[in-house]
Amino acid sequence: MPSDDFIVTPWHVEGEIDYDKLIKQFGTEKITGEILKKIEKTAGEIHFMLRRGIFFSHRDLGKILDEYQSGKKFFLYTGRGPSGHTHIGHLVPWVFAKWLQEKFQTTMYFQLTDDEKFYAKENLTLEQTKSFAYENALDFIALGFKPENTKIIINTNNIRTLYPIAAQVAKKINFSNTKAVFGFKNETNIGMIFYTSLQSAPCFIEDRQVLIPLGVDQDPHFRITRDVAPKIGRPKPALIHNIMIPSLTGPGGKMSASEESGTIYTTDSPQVVKKKINKYAFSGGQPTVEEHRRIGGNPDIDVSYQYLRIFFEPDDKKLKSIYDDYKSGKMLTGELKAILIDKVNSFLEEHQQKREKAKDQIERFLLSEK
Amino acid sequence: MPSDDFIVTPWHVEGEIDYDKLIKQFGTEKITGEILKKIEKTAGEIHFMLRRGIFFSHRDLGKILDEYQSGKKFFLYTGRGPSGHTHIGHLVPWVFAKWLQEKFQTTMYFQLTDDEKFYAKENLTLEQTKSFAYENALDFIALGFKPENTKIIINTNNIRTLYPIAAQVAKKINFSNTKAVFGFKNETNIGMIFYTSLQSAPCFIEDRQVLIPLGVDQDPHFRITRDVAPKIGRPKPALIHNIMIPSLTGPGGKMSASEESGTIYTTDSPQVVKKKINKYAFSGGQPTVEEHRRIGGNPDIDVSYQYLRIFFEPDDKKLKSIYDDYKSGKMLTGELKAILIDKVNSFLEEHQQKREKAKDQIERFLLSEK
Repeated sequence: MPSDDFIVTPWHVEGEIDYDKLIKQFGTEKITGEILKKIEKTAGEIHFMLRRGIFFSHRDLGKILDEYQSGKKFFLYTGRGPSGHTHIGHLVPWVFAKWLQEKFQTTMYFQLTDDEKFYAKENLTLEQTKSFAYENALDFIALGFKPENTKIIINTNNIRTLYPIAAQVAKKINFSNTKAVFGFKNETNIGMIFYTSLQSAPCFIEDRQVLIPLGVDQDPHFRITRDVAPKIGRPKPALIHNIMIPSLTGPGGKMSASEESGTIYTTDSPQVVKKKINKYAFSGGQPTVEEHRRIGGNPDIDVSYQYLRIFFEPDDKKLKSIYDDYKSGKMLTGELKAILIDKVNSFLEEHQQKREKAKDQIERFLLSEK
Repeated sequence: MPSDDFIVTPWHVEGEIDYDKLIKQFGTEKITGEILKKIEKTAGEIHFMLRRGIFFSHRDLGKILDEYQSGKKFFLYTGRGPSGHTHIGHLVPWVFAKWLQEKFQTTMYFQLTDDEKFYAKENLTLEQTKSFAYENALDFIALGFKPENTKIIINTNNIRTLYPIAAQVAKKINFSNTKAVFGFKNETNIGMIFYTSLQSAPCFIEDRQVLIPLGVDQDPHFRITRDVAPKIGRPKPALIHNIMIPSLTGPGGKMSASEESGTIYTTDSPQVVKKKINKYAFSGGQPTVEEHRRIGGNPDIDVSYQYLRIFFEPDDKKLKSIYDDYKSGKMLTGELKAILIDKVNSFLEEHQQKREKAKDQIERFLLSEK
């Protein structure tokens, strides 16, 4: 591990991430009060994920907000690598993207990179990643997007649209660039080497500026895209980054669809959710009730509290009172977990119903090929 | 240049090629009398390009001929990189492929790699290479293929069919492999690095063995494909290689569509053909008529004679008499050139008519996407 004690790449996140250091390392910009004011000016409000620093960093966000004010619209693009079932961590940028879409009245593209996960995972077949892509699409649709202004891209389905754009990008990227940005080696397969150009392609699918809400681990792809954009006469994508969502089992790394115990899937039953949180959720509490009452818990490292902060408790006042009660020792770990279990299960109850309905809607969302 | 004094790669051919040395360098097999007998057994004859060593080398040809005898059919695949208009050198493997198709009653795929030429040529756009692809397809169709058993693939048109196959191949090839086989460097663009997997894809488009008639410079692509095939549970492609067709201006290198003066295009007028051959065709004759009568010419280095041998004079007896007359000094260079001009122009007169008719047929040849 480098001296910073953490690693963030699109395929590997490790260590406890210092986000201020990461901003310096990646060369992005912090979301300032000034930026928040610009957002509020159009949106009329500030999403809690912005207030709480879940979205913490950006590239060119100020520029596109200024342009929006002067009448120049943008479009949204985000995505997911379908290596498994959707977990609740995936929903963070999607929910935020939906808020942006409503407030800024944009079109939205959602890319499912079945080819990427096939290239990246030795044991996954293309049939499997494609099947996960359809599964993941249901979760996306369940969040309430509309097919009129939202299109889902599945790479192997939409390759006819993507490839000619990707080719323009690929011609301007050499192997050295991918070594520098992704750490690729001579042993990296050539699908993987080419792949970044397909993740770039949706940035140029409309003839206007794109804004990409995404996990900060995906930034390296678009750092390359931003270098290429002027070379092919297109605007640089603007980005807004969210932090990594911690695994249930603790901070350090991100929640991963391939690590069963640390992950709450959107298809988990109430019993499974309860069991996972009670058994695995990393706690900031003290070893005994007596000690906890005396010293108090640490919500800043407690995963249950963090899930409430990141996603499940949008009400700042309620969140603060949980924070204070847990820190003072008034609230026990079991009580904190019970709040999260309740929140997750009531979210999932509704989500799972919408997810079932999405099965009838999915065809209307899939990008049709020219 | 290496010690062998020639270079043969898919994108660069230089020097006077020693084909026996090339067979050793590439690790292919020479077409022997035994192989010719096997072909004759089914075909009932030996194509003059086989008799004369224009097709000189192969991989696994004996194997698929034996299998054919025992009832196992194969299919044919060849192609072209559309970097410019078609020249007469391109027609060599196509004409031979048509003969194979008729004699062995196979389906045939013809791939036009518009993406490859876009990646390889700094100044070509994808629109230009695609437009050349359509132009080149007309020449292919004009040779008399039938849409019932012949399909034309244009990479950016058929990427939906090709990409999932290419992805299977790409996952099994790493950057080191492409360095070793193509001499790629860190500065090579990632489109180019990935591309070989798209040239592999048609090898697996049917669920049976493929035979590929092709210029020997394209062998490196399929050397990789042959390594990958067993890893993805598919049969290794069999190959039959033709020699490089010399440029008008002389032996060494191959006829190139980007070098105007050394190239006879299929769309050239009789006057242009006459002028190009008279002005540029490298001659094996002597500086003066007197000297030529006395010493005789050298048909082995004379490009006009070589064109007759390779393509324009299928009659062995007539060819031999030209050879003897030129070598003895009885036939002057001007007379030899006049024979070639006449042959080329009568071929092109018919070809250009068929090429016009092909414009109405092309849609029926284009591979339709699933």
